[in-house]
Amino acid sequence: MQKTVKEIAELIDGKIEGEEELVITGISGIKEALEGDITFVANPKYLPLVGKTRASAIITSFDLARTVPKTFIRTHNPSLAFAKLISLLRPQELTHPKGIHPTVILAKSAKLGKNISIGAYSVIEEDVSIGDNTVIYPHTYIGKQTKIGKDCLIYSHVSIRERISIGDRVIIHSGTVIGSDGFGYVTVDGIHHKIPQMGIVEIGDDVEIGANVTIDRARFEKTLIGSGTKIDNLVQIAHNVVIGENSIIVAQVGISGSTVIGKNVTLAGQVGVVGHISIGDGAVVAAQSGVSKSIPAFTTVWGYPAKPMETAKRINACIQNLPRLYKHVEEIKRKIEELERRI
Amino acid sequence: MQKTVKEIAELIDGKIEGEEELVITGISGIKEALEGDITFVANPKYLPLVGKTRASAIITSFDLARTVPKTFIRTHNPSLAFAKLISLLRPQELTHPKGIHPTVILAKSAKLGKNISIGAYSVIEEDVSIGDNTVIYPHTYIGKQTKIGKDCLIYSHVSIRERISIGDRVIIHSGTVIGSDGFGYVTVDGIHHKIPQMGIVEIGDDVEIGANVTIDRARFEKTLIGSGTKIDNLVQIAHNVVIGENSIIVAQVGISGSTVIGKNVTLAGQVGVVGHISIGDGAVVAAQSGVSKSIPAFTTVWGYPAKPMETAKRINACIQNLPRLYKHVEEIKRKIEELERRI
Amino acid sequence: MQKTVKEIAELIDGKIEGEEELVITGISGIKEALEGDITFVANPKYLPLVGKTRASAIITSFDLARTVPKTFIRTHNPSLAFAKLISLLRPQELTHPKGIHPTVILAKSAKLGKNISIGAYSVIEEDVSIGDNTVIYPHTYIGKQTKIGKDCLIYSHVSIRERISIGDRVIIHSGTVIGSDGFGYVTVDGIHHKIPQMGIVEIGDDVEIGANVTIDRARFEKTLIGSGTKIDNLVQIAHNVVIGENSIIVAQVGISGSTVIGKNVTLAGQVGVVGHISIGDGAVVAAQSGVSKSIPAFTTVWGYPAKPMETAKRINACIQNLPRLYKHVEEIKRKIEELERRI
Repeated sequence: MQKTVKEIAELIDGKIEGEEELVITGISGIKEALEGDITFVANPKYLPLVGKTRASAIITSFDLARTVPKTFIRTHNPSLAFAKLISLLRPQELTHPKGIHPTVILAKSAKLGKNISIGAYSVIEEDVSIGDNTVIYPHTYIGKQTKIGKDCLIYSHVSIRERISIGDRVIIHSGTVIGSDGFGYVTVDGIHHKIPQMGIVEIGDDVEIGANVTIDRARFEKTLIGSGTKIDNLVQIAHNVVIGENSIIVAQVGISGSTVIGKNVTLAGQVGVVGHISIGDGAVVAAQSGVSKSIPAFTTVWGYPAKPMETAKRINACIQNLPRLYKHVEEIKRKIEELERRI
Repeated sequence: MQKTVKEIAELIDGKIEGEEELVITGISGIKEALEGDITFVANPKYLPLVGKTRASAIITSFDLARTVPKTFIRTHNPSLAFAKLISLLRPQELTHPKGIHPTVILAKSAKLGKNISIGAYSVIEEDVSIGDNTVIYPHTYIGKQTKIGKDCLIYSHVSIRERISIGDRVIIHSGTVIGSDGFGYVTVDGIHHKIPQMGIVEIGDDVEIGANVTIDRARFEKTLIGSGTKIDNLVQIAHNVVIGENSIIVAQVGISGSTVIGKNVTLAGQVGVVGHISIGDGAVVAAQSGVSKSIPAFTTVWGYPAKPMETAKRINACIQNLPRLYKHVEEIKRKIEELERRI
Repeated sequence: MQKTVKEIAELIDGKIEGEEELVITGISGIKEALEGDITFVANPKYLPLVGKTRASAIITSFDLARTVPKTFIRTHNPSLAFAKLISLLRPQELTHPKGIHPTVILAKSAKLGKNISIGAYSVIEEDVSIGDNTVIYPHTYIGKQTKIGKDCLIYSHVSIRERISIGDRVIIHSGTVIGSDGFGYVTVDGIHHKIPQMGIVEIGDDVEIGANVTIDRARFEKTLIGSGTKIDNLVQIAHNVVIGENSIIVAQVGISGSTVIGKNVTLAGQVGVVGHISIGDGAVVAAQSGVSKSIPAFTTVWGYPAKPMETAKRINACIQNLPRLYKHVEEIKRKIEELERRI
């Protein structure tokens, strides 16, 4: 990479304070940056690093004082500008498969759009349809009648079972399974009889799904992942779960059957959610919490069982203080005995 | 689907109350049902929905009063009747592979029963045996000397390592790994030396194993999953674990090495169990609990560390009340000071 | 197996107490041992089993009194001696693939060392390099420019993406994904914009990685797993995490982005660690703990949130005692009321 500060400022529509002709040779996080790199500061908690970073230029907002002799490029949203810059400057993506490898097993009834790439040894079953420009890595399995949209990116070893529907611009990482049977049985005299899982999974546009995730098909109807939702690695989504748009599901979260999750919800890492409840729009569940009851919109909860954050913090403070409370109660007992003696 | 209530009642040996000639066009859960659908009510907690559902007919028990002008079909076990009905009515299973795909790599020494299907690019190593009617999806790996029973269903991307034994009618979902090495080391001066894991995994009949599960082979002897046990997605079962018959292991549970779990045990989602303990027959462990000690049979436990449910609930109630307790203790202190002054 | 006690003692440099010419026919754990087996006792908690085991010979330390008429072989480290013995006596490893299967898709630019084995249907992309004696099972995907060292063992269905670096003698179990994108977005007006993850993953020598593990590539720079570290099944390691040498990461642990973990650290099963903190050398985190703050070296922590073990135990004892504390406080209230009446 070889770009001047001026060229970069034009790419991100930024205002330069410092050397326009400075040549930038790399792009990096503020801690790891070397001389010649450009970096960014958006979060005020990283401000102290501005004086320490070895980066030569910093993308930042209009309100950060320039207290160091480094070149600043100011924009209204430094994170977004930086993300845009990275994607503009990323090395040519040399790694994706190109074209349909001769070893792909492609059913005659499959309908393929234009400019599709499918890696070696993938299996595309009957009546599958795949939209324009979608890229599929080697060893992927796509079951009968499944529909995949345009501009999707599906990595190696993904299993997508039959009759699944996937939108446009969806990214699915390696090892993920979509459309496995929901976990449902009718138990009679201690024996578990399997309830056929005849529904589907529907995934909206612009969804990203991490590696080794499992999303079960519905018993009836569908398991639904709303557009714009991002799912991290090793997440479990049970049958008939509905997730709204633009939610964030962090790694190792488990969501039980038929639970409904709103828009712009955040479930932090390792959270567990019981079945048949709802989590309102904009709610945030802190890491490792166990959610056993519905949560209203725009509420932050924490704990096991999860409670509103302020309550949870107050209770946690009480818990941390218990050894002292026990001492106080012992003292109180002594004082009462003394009082009893004295009366 | 086009069936009269009378035809359906015959299929499930039920007694009709209402219109025998009513035509049913679909089958659905009580909440999602549309006009023309048949549904069921088994759990009393769904009774209030009987008045609200749009279903035209309801399979239910003999004791539910018919308070709505809908057709009822009464049976002794509505859940089981409904499950039976679903499997009788399910669309022809068009999705399974048929026959042995020419790309399958099948060792000459493999012994195959009758009517076996194996999907494209699967690899079947030497001395494997597979029973009649078993269906294996594409991209499955089956290691040397492994035995798979009759009527099994193994989805894509399953890895079954060498010398594993799998019973009849077992279902294994995509991405699951059976027979990976147990996690065992001898640590000398901070360096971890691998202990060879030379045992096997034995899986009984009628077991179902979800997607992306991991079941490690034993150090010696075997890791054992009893007949009829059902395992959900992303479960970890360590080396030398023994699970009895007809147990239910919900998603993301982890069971540490050499622990013995009885029959008809339920481990709810995200439970963790330490190694070298036992969980008695019929025990239930609530979601996210951490089990650090053996649990007697027919006990329900909850919490971290897990305790009998009643104790756990009492302690939890105490915890939720702590802020009030602290206030009470403050009041008590003030009163004692007052008493001390007054004496 | 047919070896005399004398032959075994020579293999492990041990001192015999008992019958030198006794023929040993098997090797086993102390509980499962049968007559003719050799076993070992290293952990004092298994001492009571010495009188009960059916094993004919026992490898043990110099300080254990020989209270039973069994043959002892004494060594300074019985566990290590036993591990060594097992690997010396293990059956010929018949299961590994031999040679490069004709169905392997091997880019012309790939550089292979000597004596490499690659199983059927594996895909090795351009500019990959693989060291001498490495064994790769079927269905493995290795992305462009990835480097794999000597004497590695990679099981079926492993996905290793582009530009990853893996040391010597590394073992990777089935279904594991290395180099998936880190989970990073910039959120503007509720929409999540993907931040390209352009870094790599670097894995040292002698690392073992379990089944269905996920290790994300860094945003910049690298996610780093130090030499000698052992990772169990279903572990999640986020982007830019650094793990030192010889650490132990037990099943279902999740480590969030940019956290730095020292040498010889143990994270027990299902532990969660937040991002951007550090865990010092030799620290131990008990099972299911949630680590929200940095942990100093050589500290053992437990709980949610995790606290030093002694504090955590004291607080836990207080919690278990809460129902009694509430009773005491009630009694105190009554006594105070009585005192108030009496004054």
